[in-house]
Amino acid sequence: MAKKISGGVCAPKGFSANGIHCGIRKNKLKKDLALIVSDVRCTAAGVYTTNLVKGAPILVTKAHLADGYARAVVVNSGNANTCNADGVEIAEGMCALVERFCGVPSDDVLVASTGVIGQRLSLEPIEGGMQALAAGLSREGSSDAAEAIMTTDTVAKEIACSFVAGGKECRMGAIAKGVGMICPNMATMLCFVTTDAAISAPMLQRALSEEVKDSFNMLSVDRDTSTNDTLCIMASGLAGNEEIAEGGADFRAFRRALHFITVQLCRMIAGDGEGATKLIECTVSGAKTKRDAKLAAKAVVCSDLLKAAMFGCDANWGRVLCALGYSGADLDVEKIDLDFRSAGGVLAVCRGGAGIEFSEEFAKKVLSEREIDIDVRVGDGRGKATAWGCDLTYDYVKINGDYRT
Amino acid sequence: MAKKISGGVCAPKGFSANGIHCGIRKNKLKKDLALIVSDVRCTAAGVYTTNLVKGAPILVTKAHLADGYARAVVVNSGNANTCNADGVEIAEGMCALVERFCGVPSDDVLVASTGVIGQRLSLEPIEGGMQALAAGLSREGSSDAAEAIMTTDTVAKEIACSFVAGGKECRMGAIAKGVGMICPNMATMLCFVTTDAAISAPMLQRALSEEVKDSFNMLSVDRDTSTNDTLCIMASGLAGNEEIAEGGADFRAFRRALHFITVQLCRMIAGDGEGATKLIECTVSGAKTKRDAKLAAKAVVCSDLLKAAMFGCDANWGRVLCALGYSGADLDVEKIDLDFRSAGGVLAVCRGGAGIEFSEEFAKKVLSEREIDIDVRVGDGRGKATAWGCDLTYDYVKINGDYRT
Repeated sequence: MAKKISGGVCAPKGFSANGIHCGIRKNKLKKDLALIVSDVRCTAAGVYTTNLVKGAPILVTKAHLADGYARAVVVNSGNANTCNADGVEIAEGMCALVERFCGVPSDDVLVASTGVIGQRLSLEPIEGGMQALAAGLSREGSSDAAEAIMTTDTVAKEIACSFVAGGKECRMGAIAKGVGMICPNMATMLCFVTTDAAISAPMLQRALSEEVKDSFNMLSVDRDTSTNDTLCIMASGLAGNEEIAEGGADFRAFRRALHFITVQLCRMIAGDGEGATKLIECTVSGAKTKRDAKLAAKAVVCSDLLKAAMFGCDANWGRVLCALGYSGADLDVEKIDLDFRSAGGVLAVCRGGAGIEFSEEFAKKVLSEREIDIDVRVGDGRGKATAWGCDLTYDYVKINGDYRT
Repeated sequence: MAKKISGGVCAPKGFSANGIHCGIRKNKLKKDLALIVSDVRCTAAGVYTTNLVKGAPILVTKAHLADGYARAVVVNSGNANTCNADGVEIAEGMCALVERFCGVPSDDVLVASTGVIGQRLSLEPIEGGMQALAAGLSREGSSDAAEAIMTTDTVAKEIACSFVAGGKECRMGAIAKGVGMICPNMATMLCFVTTDAAISAPMLQRALSEEVKDSFNMLSVDRDTSTNDTLCIMASGLAGNEEIAEGGADFRAFRRALHFITVQLCRMIAGDGEGATKLIECTVSGAKTKRDAKLAAKAVVCSDLLKAAMFGCDANWGRVLCALGYSGADLDVEKIDLDFRSAGGVLAVCRGGAGIEFSEEFAKKVLSEREIDIDVRVGDGRGKATAWGCDLTYDYVKINGDYRT
């Protein structure tokens, strides 16, 4: 089983990190440049946005990952380096700076950017800050790196766990950012995972591609699939386990650890959604197929109407049924049972597709909590899925009504 | 050409209407029951929500329309009569009351309900009000009917036009409601169209089914497809034109009139979207196919991020490109040109997929208007489409945070 530990991306053996303010952002208190470096060359894998409009760094990262190896990740916040004429040149320039100051060949450097789309990113502040960024790399640097990739995130997002593969204790860690333009489709906004497990590049890619289907692809803040979604993983192999090169018990242990990491990050990202006051987790069970369960769960957490109702602590369950109905899932409406659950208790609102009596007072109590589970049972099939989202609030509108200034 | 006239659903020959407060709603100042009756039996057609969760009135209306004829429409607001155990019985009861007080056979009565989902609708206030409702039917009653079907609508929505078919002047009128849970898929929330043109039932259904693809299906307030979407049309034939029973010039004139009516209503519905301060119209031209243009235009007006930016008068065009990119349309990103247009002027922001310089001051001027056109050119293909939406505001959250109380 995966066991939660501290240390973020530096928890696995061989990884150092750092984050600084280099001047891309005007606010000097806000870090804007992050670096993760491995002591050794790592097997590596990535998944990216399916948006046709792609950030320039994604093109560069894909090229650098084509051989299945990488050693470092450099990331800036404050500018997405997307829809710019010289975007690829700038992204390559960031990798070249990592080579110059850390000695990592630039084609083993992964690069990502997040922030405003369509404004030119200057290499100048990055060049000015890279020496200090490299000099400050440390085993305790994960939090600084996590902080440096934040945009409107209100909390830094890092997680780590240990697990056993091939009889050896292995570790896995990650940092992520993302609060708005969140409806990942193959990956989330930005997420970087490290591990010291030895695992081949093809198996790493397989693990990552399988994993996102049940984690990041089931997450939405606002149904806007970003242009810069990137999720990369680097495996140093320093845990000393026999390299995972095929399916089996070790690969399953690795997958469980990866699932633990990604689900925790999904919950952090949804709970910190722009303007959000609540994390909403919707689990649909008893569906005819897993696909039906996923369509249904995702539709519920994506509904603006349901999200606004959750903000208002209003048990307006008709909106859940409405979303289930247009989700595209094959469902028998007369079989739907629905409960709202939280630390405040369990509120049953619908049985067999029709409403049942409930106390409005108790409903307010249940829905006033920070985490709301929407528990939907749609029959006795084996399909089950969970999706994550957040409420829709005045602050979401405020944050996004004037994001650029 | 279709020419705008007054009179709403009563503009065509043979139709009377009325709207009253019968007591479904607590607020006595708010009308909640509407009736439209034709002097003669009409050919009729309807399209309905694709949501699997369907309001009970839809089942009844579909059954009553199966023969292609109808004579009356009865509609209540304040309760959607959806997800209730006895919903069909109540909807049938409403039609029976129209038979009792108007002499229209109940299976020629169409019925619709709008309001909260999952609360039992009592027939009692409807029974109490039907006599007065029937007695007050008049040629000037369209506005009262339009008012009685409003929920959180801030303006009553009615429209009428005249057109020529078979050398005769024909008329068409409509009322509609809808401000939230608006992302029609085959129809909008509620819309009732009348015409005095003679047209066969199959041609009427064909006109309606074709028309919604370019009008109501291109409209979104919040991407939530309602459980109660219903669009019905009744044709009295009293204009005296030769019955339109096949394609040709008369059918095309009829289609143009219907398109005029539906587009005007789409603009009214989008502009009156819950909490909206602005109507957003996005036109995509130069696409490879019409389907690509439609996917692209709809994605833009559906983006919460773009909608919040419009509320803030922020020319954040990167969000338009982002939405185009994930729309599913086949596009060449480097060919995208983008302008924001309004009564305030034309603001060019993007050429060939990359940003161009613009004045922030002028941008605020252009985006401060009530109607914003987003003009996207994606190449030199023949695909073109328009979609309608509105901005995302604090008031949308407020209205939907506590809708039931």
